[in-house]
Amino acid sequence: MSSNSTGKLFTVTTFGESHGPAIGCVIDGCPPGLAIAPEEFRTDLDRRATGRSRHTSQRKEADEVEILSGVYEGRTTGTPIALLIRNTDQRSKDYGDIAQTFRPGHADYTYWQKYGIRDPRGGGRSSARETTMRVAAAVIAKKWLAERHGVRVRGYLAQLGEVVPQGFEWEAVEQNPFFWPHEAQVPELEKYMDALRKSGDSVGARVNVEAEGVPPGWGEPIYGKLDGDLAAALMSINAVKGVEIGDGFAAVTQHGSQHRDEMHMDGFTSNHAGGILGGISTGQAVRASIALKPTSSILIPGHSVNLAGEAVDVVTKGRHDPCVGIRATPIAEAMMALVLMDHALRHRAQCGDVGEIKPRIP
Amino acid sequence: MSSNSTGKLFTVTTFGESHGPAIGCVIDGCPPGLAIAPEEFRTDLDRRATGRSRHTSQRKEADEVEILSGVYEGRTTGTPIALLIRNTDQRSKDYGDIAQTFRPGHADYTYWQKYGIRDPRGGGRSSARETTMRVAAAVIAKKWLAERHGVRVRGYLAQLGEVVPQGFEWEAVEQNPFFWPHEAQVPELEKYMDALRKSGDSVGARVNVEAEGVPPGWGEPIYGKLDGDLAAALMSINAVKGVEIGDGFAAVTQHGSQHRDEMHMDGFTSNHAGGILGGISTGQAVRASIALKPTSSILIPGHSVNLAGEAVDVVTKGRHDPCVGIRATPIAEAMMALVLMDHALRHRAQCGDVGEIKPRIP
Amino acid sequence: MSSNSTGKLFTVTTFGESHGPAIGCVIDGCPPGLAIAPEEFRTDLDRRATGRSRHTSQRKEADEVEILSGVYEGRTTGTPIALLIRNTDQRSKDYGDIAQTFRPGHADYTYWQKYGIRDPRGGGRSSARETTMRVAAAVIAKKWLAERHGVRVRGYLAQLGEVVPQGFEWEAVEQNPFFWPHEAQVPELEKYMDALRKSGDSVGARVNVEAEGVPPGWGEPIYGKLDGDLAAALMSINAVKGVEIGDGFAAVTQHGSQHRDEMHMDGFTSNHAGGILGGISTGQAVRASIALKPTSSILIPGHSVNLAGEAVDVVTKGRHDPCVGIRATPIAEAMMALVLMDHALRHRAQCGDVGEIKPRIP
Amino acid sequence: MSSNSTGKLFTVTTFGESHGPAIGCVIDGCPPGLAIAPEEFRTDLDRRATGRSRHTSQRKEADEVEILSGVYEGRTTGTPIALLIRNTDQRSKDYGDIAQTFRPGHADYTYWQKYGIRDPRGGGRSSARETTMRVAAAVIAKKWLAERHGVRVRGYLAQLGEVVPQGFEWEAVEQNPFFWPHEAQVPELEKYMDALRKSGDSVGARVNVEAEGVPPGWGEPIYGKLDGDLAAALMSINAVKGVEIGDGFAAVTQHGSQHRDEMHMDGFTSNHAGGILGGISTGQAVRASIALKPTSSILIPGHSVNLAGEAVDVVTKGRHDPCVGIRATPIAEAMMALVLMDHALRHRAQCGDVGEIKPRIP
Repeated sequence: MSSNSTGKLFTVTTFGESHGPAIGCVIDGCPPGLAIAPEEFRTDLDRRATGRSRHTSQRKEADEVEILSGVYEGRTTGTPIALLIRNTDQRSKDYGDIAQTFRPGHADYTYWQKYGIRDPRGGGRSSARETTMRVAAAVIAKKWLAERHGVRVRGYLAQLGEVVPQGFEWEAVEQNPFFWPHEAQVPELEKYMDALRKSGDSVGARVNVEAEGVPPGWGEPIYGKLDGDLAAALMSINAVKGVEIGDGFAAVTQHGSQHRDEMHMDGFTSNHAGGILGGISTGQAVRASIALKPTSSILIPGHSVNLAGEAVDVVTKGRHDPCVGIRATPIAEAMMALVLMDHALRHRAQCGDVGEIKPRIP
Repeated sequence: MSSNSTGKLFTVTTFGESHGPAIGCVIDGCPPGLAIAPEEFRTDLDRRATGRSRHTSQRKEADEVEILSGVYEGRTTGTPIALLIRNTDQRSKDYGDIAQTFRPGHADYTYWQKYGIRDPRGGGRSSARETTMRVAAAVIAKKWLAERHGVRVRGYLAQLGEVVPQGFEWEAVEQNPFFWPHEAQVPELEKYMDALRKSGDSVGARVNVEAEGVPPGWGEPIYGKLDGDLAAALMSINAVKGVEIGDGFAAVTQHGSQHRDEMHMDGFTSNHAGGILGGISTGQAVRASIALKPTSSILIPGHSVNLAGEAVDVVTKGRHDPCVGIRATPIAEAMMALVLMDHALRHRAQCGDVGEIKPRIP
Repeated sequence: MSSNSTGKLFTVTTFGESHGPAIGCVIDGCPPGLAIAPEEFRTDLDRRATGRSRHTSQRKEADEVEILSGVYEGRTTGTPIALLIRNTDQRSKDYGDIAQTFRPGHADYTYWQKYGIRDPRGGGRSSARETTMRVAAAVIAKKWLAERHGVRVRGYLAQLGEVVPQGFEWEAVEQNPFFWPHEAQVPELEKYMDALRKSGDSVGARVNVEAEGVPPGWGEPIYGKLDGDLAAALMSINAVKGVEIGDGFAAVTQHGSQHRDEMHMDGFTSNHAGGILGGISTGQAVRASIALKPTSSILIPGHSVNLAGEAVDVVTKGRHDPCVGIRATPIAEAMMALVLMDHALRHRAQCGDVGEIKPRIP
Repeated sequence: MSSNSTGKLFTVTTFGESHGPAIGCVIDGCPPGLAIAPEEFRTDLDRRATGRSRHTSQRKEADEVEILSGVYEGRTTGTPIALLIRNTDQRSKDYGDIAQTFRPGHADYTYWQKYGIRDPRGGGRSSARETTMRVAAAVIAKKWLAERHGVRVRGYLAQLGEVVPQGFEWEAVEQNPFFWPHEAQVPELEKYMDALRKSGDSVGARVNVEAEGVPPGWGEPIYGKLDGDLAAALMSINAVKGVEIGDGFAAVTQHGSQHRDEMHMDGFTSNHAGGILGGISTGQAVRASIALKPTSSILIPGHSVNLAGEAVDVVTKGRHDPCVGIRATPIAEAMMALVLMDHALRHRAQCGDVGEIKPRIP
């Protein structure tokens, strides 16, 4: 199976380089009859887009989605849905100088070692530009999950460098360019980012994502576990270095009497598990958290080598995000939505015969 | 593709329940001509086995591996290798009482909700018993990786509850039942575990695993990234709640100037990335770390419900590990070995034509 | 995905060599709650078994199926079902002499060229012995298809060398060792086979298989077409050299006005298409026909070479079928059942939302 | 895995409807460094294109291929190659009238029954228009196979209705619009087709395709057999109702002493097997033959029903091929090339370690 595809039954295949003619994806396995219009991609693509504020890359992405197939008179037909976005505002000259050098912390060296050839323009295939199509494909998954199962997937920035939220309001998240859950801290974040940008450096971040309304029973033992698939999907996002489900690494110092989520007929008393037990959803909110490294595209010189094997100092010009985590929230939501969509279909394939199961805990 | 299979080209399919007649696996895609004998499975199966010390479950697992196919006159033939282990010492009576109740923190409830039927004997398919076959399959992967590429995969217990290593000696790891890297602390760990067992509770742990000798170029963009596949493989291990590659969550508070691994022709100056950039190996050691939750099988009563929807108190009798992390080291090694084996084959499939790539950093 | 696996959602992985310790399979994706007992495998395994009459190989196959996993208290649990059959009566000495030579028309040479090593005992993995597990796995598929959808899969021997049926009675098929649909010709076939066996030669055959009760809508464009998957499944049977759907090669000389199946609300007027249009079932009987070559295991000397590259004459001793087609009927049924089972699950995965579609032609 | 994808390692995913905005494909797994230019697609696309002669559909397909990704400075980079062709000259009005009716012998009814919705314009996804992308993708496969292994894939029209070749010259095939191997018969074919077109009817055909230069060892037991994959690939072509490998159905009446291909150190004495034994290539020419049904798009009225369940008479207007087999030759070549390419990569993945195998028969 294509390594540029994700999902067993709701299969999304992406293609395209950062500065090639276009990026796109093919979505295969979408149930027929779902209403979908080009303008529905707008919201999430804007949330992910660069240039929303001075705190993200200044590259302007128009990101007009064209639906090439699989939709007839506004409804999905069950055949592959191809989405295309033409690349614009590419400014390849910004990158010309790095064709000969390997930027430290980037995929330049590894792509070169693997393929013996690489497209250096904007990082080519390794650019986060590819995640645009994940977000686009997930718009369809999110809509189906919401309409068919009442599932709601949403996320927020849970840490920016050393800064952690001092409060939590879901309403706040979409009110600021950071997806930060506590409005009162936004000025502090603005100051933090301005100082960071001035220093020419970058910083890491943590993003939390969760899905409410997931019914119990999604996920498959043993290598198709819901948490296993989430881990792969989230780790595949550029710059992600860690994935947690529920309490994650906090569980290392916990005791069993404290971690296990007790059950009553009116509900679970806690959700340390993050809504997944044995790889299968419990019916609670599915919760994951990811760590994003600080981007290596910074203005501070770094030691590296060039194609000739000579020592060089690298400074990454061009337009970059001082904190890639800021725009990662919609991408993390997208990957969780794609995994849930795939498992929703997988579950009904194998267990479509199984009727209502009692007892069910709300 | 089977959800009980892992690997695209070196495909391992496992089967079997904890207290069924047998567990086993089918390994498809193994290169032909590899010498393998039944006794070669012994070492790693013993490292994973229960009953090695008073600090793990007292269930005695003989774990005699029978090779059913794919090996002729001591060598692999390229056809599927089936391995079988008969279950012994099952003591199902220990579990009879839980057939009617859902143990908190276990897969009992989720399997029931998914399938409407479950094998309650020892947790059935959700038992860590299944990991025995991962370790067995990985014996073949480890051997091929070592012979063909000089790759060495090994791990250790990096944290036990609050206890962290005060020193590090690889030689120590195999000298104590904890896979602990600092011999001087073993008495402390013994005392810790004895107290824990007496309390009837359990605790979490962290296991680190790494692979040396991995050449640059293994791993595939975008959804077949080496770190993405490692995340899925490691998260699929029972009780794992978090996965880190390289610095993992520590990267959240790092700056780009600090995180990026600079390059010189005589090597990298650091390995914050964990040997992977853009999903492809750099040639450095591939490093991952996992968090294991405290087992929910404890003697302290917990609230739950039964099949009749009545509130019950659950106490898990039977033989259990107060810290499942202790035996997780060989399992984590196994999953890393299986992923690397798969990518070794995938790499030569696509890039077998590519000659030596210059410059290469040692 | 394993090349020894078939099926995307109802995935069957087989293993084992003709004269190894055992053959077996792992069935993953079976819906939970299906009642299945070891004795239910008996009928079809006996139909496929050698030694039923003097017209097939005299190898005696006990073929006792052991269920190793996935079934609890007589019902499938949704976890992998492993089936095992120990090999008995192997007589490897019969084959000792062919370890050094390549039998013409056999897989000896190709396995050797591919792997550089081969298990010569009874043809190893290339033996039709492997098909035993396809028949066993299909017992489960047939039962589910019958219970859930009223689908009935059955086949018959449609040609034996030059002999074609002079009449057709479904009732006759199971009344003779040839699966021949016209009782009156059985004595003729007996005579034909006796003469053939005396001559030491073998002959080809044609087997027809069909499924009644398949609802419209199973099968997926473009590379998951029902006929495409049937073609792969049937061609994968040992000795098969051709596959037809519906009229097959007869369509070459037909005109469109004659081939197209006209529709009325009370049904189709014909079934030239074999129940499949555009890769999707029409609701009519799904019909396929296969050509089986004459086995190359004959007593008439044939020219070949040996491992030393010397010219040799090969005579195949051992116990062989003068017409492998005779026992192919249950195998062809099995492959059709496995493909239909897989597509039944695939259809409800993607189209489980779609309600009753009007108009439907009976 | 996507049902609109073919190939395990050289994976081609196609999308697009006959009269939608565009058709395209994504090719994943192509080895890096292969030189490829847009104009290289021209030859085979023209061979497949309609409107080459008065004997095929008069729809004019410009078929300008745009390479959207995966190629940098004229060479493949190892990342997904997306190819796009905009649809032109669609004349949807020709099809407006069939939105409400099911054309007999078409996929109209089955798509409707499966999805509950269909794109009626030109048959939507079920149109042979989709095969354009197979031919495009195969241009890359053919080039790599030729450069890397000296493999040459070519085909010809082996029967047109009742007309069979009276002679055979490879040179003739590309000299006439029928891909007919005997020049002298071309006038006869012209007359045949003119009469057929005047009658408003259509006719079936047979196409043969073969690959020379395939080394021994390609193909995988049991469900990844080279002939099994070829059968699926060829049967997936629109209108194909039968597939033969080597002697195919002629083997039914053959004897083993006649069918088996004897071996000498200087070669095989025959090729009844079609270059495949046990699912693995022998090193001889790989030979397949397919039966194509007469198109159901004819001017002769046929009985059917409409969406309202009323009886209707259907006459298919629009521009159609009176014999779809005429243009099927490059499509059959394409599918064989794609299967061989995939197996070339699969073989080196598993058997890349295996050195030169002796003895090898030329």
